[in-house]
Amino acid sequence: MVKGPRIETREQVMFYDTDAAGVVHNISYLRFIEKNRTLLGSELGLDYKEMAGSGIYGAVLRIEIDYRRPGRLGEDLQVRGWLEEVTKVKFWCGFEIYRAENNELLVSSRQELALVKMPEGKPTRLPADWKKYI
Amino acid sequence: MVKGPRIETREQVMFYDTDAAGVVHNISYLRFIEKNRTLLGSELGLDYKEMAGSGIYGAVLRIEIDYRRPGRLGEDLQVRGWLEEVTKVKFWCGFEIYRAENNELLVSSRQELALVKMPEGKPTRLPADWKKYI
Amino acid sequence: MVKGPRIETREQVMFYDTDAAGVVHNISYLRFIEKNRTLLGSELGLDYKEMAGSGIYGAVLRIEIDYRRPGRLGEDLQVRGWLEEVTKVKFWCGFEIYRAENNELLVSSRQELALVKMPEGKPTRLPADWKKYI
Amino acid sequence: MVKGPRIETREQVMFYDTDAAGVVHNISYLRFIEKNRTLLGSELGLDYKEMAGSGIYGAVLRIEIDYRRPGRLGEDLQVRGWLEEVTKVKFWCGFEIYRAENNELLVSSRQELALVKMPEGKPTRLPADWKKYI
Repeated sequence: MVKGPRIETREQVMFYDTDAAGVVHNISYLRFIEKNRTLLGSELGLDYKEMAGSGIYGAVLRIEIDYRRPGRLGEDLQVRGWLEEVTKVKFWCGFEIYRAENNELLVSSRQELALVKMPEGKPTRLPADWKKYI
Repeated sequence: MVKGPRIETREQVMFYDTDAAGVVHNISYLRFIEKNRTLLGSELGLDYKEMAGSGIYGAVLRIEIDYRRPGRLGEDLQVRGWLEEVTKVKFWCGFEIYRAENNELLVSSRQELALVKMPEGKPTRLPADWKKYI
Repeated sequence: MVKGPRIETREQVMFYDTDAAGVVHNISYLRFIEKNRTLLGSELGLDYKEMAGSGIYGAVLRIEIDYRRPGRLGEDLQVRGWLEEVTKVKFWCGFEIYRAENNELLVSSRQELALVKMPEGKPTRLPADWKKYI
Repeated sequence: MVKGPRIETREQVMFYDTDAAGVVHNISYLRFIEKNRTLLGSELGLDYKEMAGSGIYGAVLRIEIDYRRPGRLGEDLQVRGWLEEVTKVKFWCGFEIYRAENNELLVSSRQELALVKMPEGKPTRLPADWKKYI
């Protein structure tokens, strides 16, 4: 893990996050993580509000996600995100989601990303000041 | 109701369509209807695959939706859509969603739309050959 | 409008809230409103965390929603919700969504709800102390 | 890869599947895969329509997903799914998503699942006749 910013976001489980099995649906956690990752990116200088202007977007290359315990309706969740590894054109982020009440780990995930110039989808270099994270 | 194309699409209720109350979540029906509406638009000459090129998109102005009976996991649903009313720059579509097994009406909806030029969001005239629907 | 609690929630528009037309997708606003409505319900004594236990859930009967201006990626949105009308077994809530930056109204909505006993879906009386809102 | 059923499902990319970068949002593919996986489960004797009755649900333990090329609005996608590996209480499924027009691979994924008895979340044995897949 590199020394970089760490982000913590909060989610409260809504009905639309759950499914008929009575637990948080597996896809909902990815939405929770994406919000965390987007704000982590802002901390790192990748302002997603400027992406439409520059045409350079953060693109997810790979997601690994482990579901450990089920979350339930109405629970408060803590999502923690950090930068895990940086190369010249790609980087990995790490994430963990905890049930706030008892600090149980529900989900952990790693995601590999790159910056791509749209609409061509061509990878571009990471910001020069990210050298400190390599 | 004007004399125009009618579209029928099918949905099979998946876990992600349901919530912890054990029924189809209210928002999921709007996704079912949007697919139907998009294909209805194609029948009417509004090819959504060409919208990115032209910059002219169908924009929803108003939705009214009535929830009559709950749908459940695994059920087959029939979504029926039609053009209901056309003026110079706006049009209404109507939709009904039925449980296929017993033909019970679950949801009915009316949606008002316009064609807008993006990114300005400026309304544009409906296609000339829609005069027959006015 | 009755004299009751008013709720304000905040949303920051994420990529998954937008679509290829470059604006907030029409369905995303309903998720924003649902979170607001759920927290409004809690203020009114309808604790959604206890719904699984009691088997009594808030069910949406009708939604009316007007889309007035498009929201965009990264914008901060204010969602305001309130109780609008109460009868013996049904109630209406009102909602408005504003762009925080310039206080422009993007979306307004009214939603009719009832309390139903699941899985039968049978309507039940509203809480006795809601008489003050009738 | 074990010799078992293979499933192919189709998706047509709708507006709600895309985001402001003009491509299919990374989370949407997981919905496409979940539908495929659910129907694959039905082929394998895990009828998801009966899960509410039995209280035994398929639970996702781990997802790995690689995003190779972007999908776009209006494209037809082919989702292919199969059983990849089976042990006593867990199994892996494999998935690939292709752009139908040119047979380009957009996404590949592996997902590990188990059958769990809800609401306890306790793992249960896989069906006896799955021995042929071990």
